[in-house]
Amino acid sequence: MSSFLNDRLQKINSYTPGEQPQDKKYIKLNTNESPFPPSNGVIKAINEAEIKDLRLYCDPYCKKLKKAVADLYNVDTDNVFLSNGSDDILNFAFMAYGGNGSAFADITYGFYSVFAELYGIDTEIIPLKDDFSLDTERFCNQNKLVVIANPNAPTGMDIPLSDIERILESNKNNIVLIDEAYVDFGGTSCVELTKKYNNLLCVGTFSKSRSLAGARLGFAIADKELIKDLETIKYSTNPYNINRLTQIAGEYAIIDNDYYMDNCKKIIKNREYTVAELEKLGFSVLPSKANFVFAKSDKLSGKELYLKLKENGVLIRHFAKDRIKDYIRITIGSMDEMKVFISAIKSIFKEN
Amino acid sequence: MSSFLNDRLQKINSYTPGEQPQDKKYIKLNTNESPFPPSNGVIKAINEAEIKDLRLYCDPYCKKLKKAVADLYNVDTDNVFLSNGSDDILNFAFMAYGGNGSAFADITYGFYSVFAELYGIDTEIIPLKDDFSLDTERFCNQNKLVVIANPNAPTGMDIPLSDIERILESNKNNIVLIDEAYVDFGGTSCVELTKKYNNLLCVGTFSKSRSLAGARLGFAIADKELIKDLETIKYSTNPYNINRLTQIAGEYAIIDNDYYMDNCKKIIKNREYTVAELEKLGFSVLPSKANFVFAKSDKLSGKELYLKLKENGVLIRHFAKDRIKDYIRITIGSMDEMKVFISAIKSIFKEN
Repeated sequence: MSSFLNDRLQKINSYTPGEQPQDKKYIKLNTNESPFPPSNGVIKAINEAEIKDLRLYCDPYCKKLKKAVADLYNVDTDNVFLSNGSDDILNFAFMAYGGNGSAFADITYGFYSVFAELYGIDTEIIPLKDDFSLDTERFCNQNKLVVIANPNAPTGMDIPLSDIERILESNKNNIVLIDEAYVDFGGTSCVELTKKYNNLLCVGTFSKSRSLAGARLGFAIADKELIKDLETIKYSTNPYNINRLTQIAGEYAIIDNDYYMDNCKKIIKNREYTVAELEKLGFSVLPSKANFVFAKSDKLSGKELYLKLKENGVLIRHFAKDRIKDYIRITIGSMDEMKVFISAIKSIFKEN
Repeated sequence: MSSFLNDRLQKINSYTPGEQPQDKKYIKLNTNESPFPPSNGVIKAINEAEIKDLRLYCDPYCKKLKKAVADLYNVDTDNVFLSNGSDDILNFAFMAYGGNGSAFADITYGFYSVFAELYGIDTEIIPLKDDFSLDTERFCNQNKLVVIANPNAPTGMDIPLSDIERILESNKNNIVLIDEAYVDFGGTSCVELTKKYNNLLCVGTFSKSRSLAGARLGFAIADKELIKDLETIKYSTNPYNINRLTQIAGEYAIIDNDYYMDNCKKIIKNREYTVAELEKLGFSVLPSKANFVFAKSDKLSGKELYLKLKENGVLIRHFAKDRIKDYIRITIGSMDEMKVFISAIKSIFKEN
């Protein structure tokens, strides 16, 4: 880094994205992408005329896409914010609401701590219970920005809406951000609660269930005053941050909603298969409502599994953090991919 | 805005983008887009296979595109930063280097003051001289982040490289950011100076000369330590911020470089035509090296011209700021568009 960089930023540990090999030689079960392509509607909508129109700026207000998201979630357009992926929205939320500090779990999405560090926000790290469930009591009465992934990552575990509501009730003076990146795979969304709680910021993404990780589209649903806050930050940093083709892809990913919801059902089925097979092989698997499972073996460490699977052409994710270093996180892909993964595990176990 | 929003952010005046009507009923000469579509290479490259791959995350390191930009500008990949439009890079630069304040002209890109406000950065506003040229002397020895658009917007006026070099020499302890969004239309780039000055951050965009405003792609060229600073911020906010299709479009926009440079020549020719016609109609036109001209009439005010042109189906940009309220900024489009614009002016003048 240069000597010109602001002191505070000199110390930041930035986020490490999962491996994104560009050569396709791996079965990629490491970054929770969908095994299914975008719907035909999306593929047809990105046509030559639209590509030619890339010469023109996109609609910074994303009017059409905003209307589609609002209709899908049964809220007003005033209650919808759109941005360049949900990371972008999380970033804005820490900037906007972290003034009195933030609180999140020890085991959760790794980016939260990066945002907190970036903005110099004091953070209370609240350990998950021994069974990796959320310690709801400790999230109550925080008086600071509360951030919860539901389902949580990388555990995949769901949090009952009644617990979320208790947290919301007891945090009336601060924002409770619920990150629902993985909610479409069997979790319970708190979108409806945004009508009741003006301190609830519900964040979603088109990257997982809607097969658009590479398009970059995230959304938030909340009380309209919170949406105005986020719009202010967007218009003070990068107003055109959702490009033209992504706006179109997002619209058609909503028009073709049935296709995506069917895909989610397939993922859930493949998850059930994967969990059953892993358990047969002696793995403990946390109960997942996401498009991934978090599992540990009694035979090999998380790191060994990661490395041996990579040798076998299967990429999964391993986290070095002490409490979860025995685990591996496996994205749920197509049934064929999961079968290859399971047989790779079997052959690794045979070798050892 | 909500009562939850951080106090400092409550006061921000966010940027107002130029009008982006989505209905195409106007000749759009208001946001400095290219009248030419992206090259055939770009159009062909965004094919069905690539759209299907939107299910996968993009390469956060943008390796292929970075190599293409580095080769085009004859620098190393270590000297190249890529992000979601050049606004995104300006935002990062204010965050990274604004610690001791910032300095920029009174008449320049309106977003600079928004970034300064966002990060609570004290700013010295340095008035342009009476002829709208840069007051080079006053930009020397600033000891704070210096930001200069070259060519400047909305004037279109070029700054001699010798003046930039004087500013760089006298600001060794702070960053000098040169915003070259419009440099391909006859300006002089300071990319080569990045090899000599480690305090120079040169920022460019694919939005203007490369017909990709709607794709969102900006770049910076600088000493590799500055690039590391910007990467740190990107990886601490939104690592995947350039989507897959934009990365591909960017690559092919470099492969097809000749097409775009030919388009720039056409724009320069159309600019010469427009300036000559405006001068015949009694306009004063500032000497432009950009894909727009800044002009004032002795017959009608800037606002009247803006409104009457809009009535006539031509969108141009007017700024309310006192010093330039008599001017209009006209993007240089195709020859046909400029002819329609000139005849619209003629008919407006006839009516009055």
